[in-house]
Amino acid sequence: MRIVVALGGNALLRRGERPDATIQLEHVRAAADALAALAKDHELLICHGNGPQVGLLALESEADRSLTRAYPLDALVAQTQGMIGYWLGQSLRNARVAAPVISVVTQVLVSADDPAFAAPTKFVGAGYDHATATELARTHGWSIAADGSSTRRVVPSPEPHGVVEIDTILTLLRAGTLVICGGGGGAPVVSENGQLRGVEAVVDKDLTASWLAVAASADRLLVLTDVAAVQRDYGTPEATPLAHTTLSELAGMRFPAGSMGPKIEACRRFVEATGGVAGVGGLADAAAIVAEIAGTTIRR
Amino acid sequence: MRIVVALGGNALLRRGERPDATIQLEHVRAAADALAALAKDHELLICHGNGPQVGLLALESEADRSLTRAYPLDALVAQTQGMIGYWLGQSLRNARVAAPVISVVTQVLVSADDPAFAAPTKFVGAGYDHATATELARTHGWSIAADGSSTRRVVPSPEPHGVVEIDTILTLLRAGTLVICGGGGGAPVVSENGQLRGVEAVVDKDLTASWLAVAASADRLLVLTDVAAVQRDYGTPEATPLAHTTLSELAGMRFPAGSMGPKIEACRRFVEATGGVAGVGGLADAAAIVAEIAGTTIRR
Repeated sequence: MRIVVALGGNALLRRGERPDATIQLEHVRAAADALAALAKDHELLICHGNGPQVGLLALESEADRSLTRAYPLDALVAQTQGMIGYWLGQSLRNARVAAPVISVVTQVLVSADDPAFAAPTKFVGAGYDHATATELARTHGWSIAADGSSTRRVVPSPEPHGVVEIDTILTLLRAGTLVICGGGGGAPVVSENGQLRGVEAVVDKDLTASWLAVAASADRLLVLTDVAAVQRDYGTPEATPLAHTTLSELAGMRFPAGSMGPKIEACRRFVEATGGVAGVGGLADAAAIVAEIAGTTIRR
Repeated sequence: MRIVVALGGNALLRRGERPDATIQLEHVRAAADALAALAKDHELLICHGNGPQVGLLALESEADRSLTRAYPLDALVAQTQGMIGYWLGQSLRNARVAAPVISVVTQVLVSADDPAFAAPTKFVGAGYDHATATELARTHGWSIAADGSSTRRVVPSPEPHGVVEIDTILTLLRAGTLVICGGGGGAPVVSENGQLRGVEAVVDKDLTASWLAVAASADRLLVLTDVAAVQRDYGTPEATPLAHTTLSELAGMRFPAGSMGPKIEACRRFVEATGGVAGVGGLADAAAIVAEIAGTTIRR
C-alpha cells in the first residue's frame, strides 16, 4: 500500500519538555523506528508537524536585535522543514529503511483572503501560564489561546489548496523513494499574477497531508499523534475511545479546533475524496493502526 | 550542458548589510534571474552557501535561554537549507524556469578525524571590529580570524567525502528537474558502524559542489561569488584578473583560505577528475562566464 503519514510536531517534542536538539533527536529516532517498520511493507510519504519548533524559532528571531524585524513565518517554517527533515531523513536511514529517503522543501498554496488570517487558531511554541502568555502577547503582538491547561501563541492557519512541488513529489514516489515533504504543513504562499509570495501563517500539517494523500492516490492516511485514539465525548466523564467509525458517525461529533479537529477533518477529506481508509492514533502503534488493531479507523 | 553552480552565501547577503529576510530575498531574486537565464539552455544543479545565515542562527540559538545548549551546527546548516532552498526555489519559479524546481535537504559525509576539527577556517556570521570579535569569542567560546578588514567567527570545515542523498539527486536530474542541494555545503555527518551522526562543522559549499559536479558528470562547474574574476597576485598592487588559466598555472599561485582558496581547489578537483571546464566570477555574469567572455575559465 501507499501510505501518507502525518506525524505530529508534539511527537518530536512533548509538552513541557525543554526544546533541546538532543531531546528532539531522541524522539525523532523513536519515530523513525516506528515508521521504518511500516516502510518494510509499504510506500511512505511523511508529512511532519512543527508547532513547537516554529514557535521557538519565531521567538529567537523576534529577540534578535541585529534584525529590523523578525523573519516571517513562511521562512521560519522552511527552516523547520530543513532541520526536522534532516533529522528524520537521517534517522530513517539509520533505522535501515531500504528505500532511498529524501526530504524536500515544500510550499503550500493558500488564499490571501482566507478568513483564517483574521482568526488565528494554530498553536505554535511552548505552553505558558495565563499571566506569562498575556504578557508575551502584549510584548510581541501575539494572539493567544488556551491549549488544555496552558496558554499558547496562535497564528493564522489558512486552508491548503495545493502543493507547489507536487509533480516532483510524485516523480520521487514513482521512483520508489520515501519522501518527507509538506513539513510544518508547507511554507505558506499565495500566487498573484503567477508569482509566489510567502505569507505569515502556518498551515495545518494534517490538512496538507490529506491533500497530498489525495494527490498521490494513497491507500491510507495515517495521522499519528500523542493520543491513542479518537475519543467520543472528548473532555467529558463519558469519553470513550472509538476503534472503528464512519464519516456519518463523525459528522455528529465535535472536536477541539487546533488539535483533534483538523485531524478528523483531514481524515474526512481523504476518505470522502478517495474511498480510502484513514487511521488516527499513537506513533508507536503505527503498524497496529494500519492492521486496524489499534487507534481509530475511519471509513466512508 | 549540465552545469553545477556554486552560489556564494555572500551573494544573498553582502558585507555589512543587515541580515533581514527582505534584504536577502531581494538578492535571491536577482540571483534567480541570473540563474534562470542559464536554465533556458542548460541543466542546472545549484549548491548555495550559508556563511552569514548559519552564523546568525547560531547566535540566536546561543542566546536562547530556553535551551540547555545551542543547537549544533549540523542542525543549523539544515535550517539554512530549508530557508534558502525555499527562497531560491520560489524565486526560480517566479523567474519562469521551465523545469520543475526542487530543494532537497542534503547530508555530506566527513571524517571524524579530519584535521580541520582542530583548525577552524570557515567564516560564519557577521564581520566585527577586532575588539568586539574578541569579546564575542570569549563569551561564546568561538575561534575567530581576520576576513579582510573585519574579524569573524571561524568553524571547522572538514573535507566532503560524499553526499548521502546522491542517488536521489541523480534520479531528479535524469527526470529533468532543476535541483537545489548541498546547501551550506550540506549538513555534515560522520558514518560510524553504518549510523549517520551530525557533527559540529560547516563544509565548504564550493568543495561540496565540486564533489556533486564530478558525481553528476557535469560539463561545467560554475563558482559564482562577489568578485568578477580570479586575481593573479591577489592583495598586492600587481593584482590582475585572470581570464583563462590552467591547473598548472594555478598550481604556482596562493589564495586566501576560507574565501578564494576553496573556490580554486573546488575547480581544480573538478577539472582534474573530469577534464571539464570550471568558471569563477560574478553572479550577474553567470551566462557570460559559461560563454567564456567574463570571469575566469579554468582548463586542464
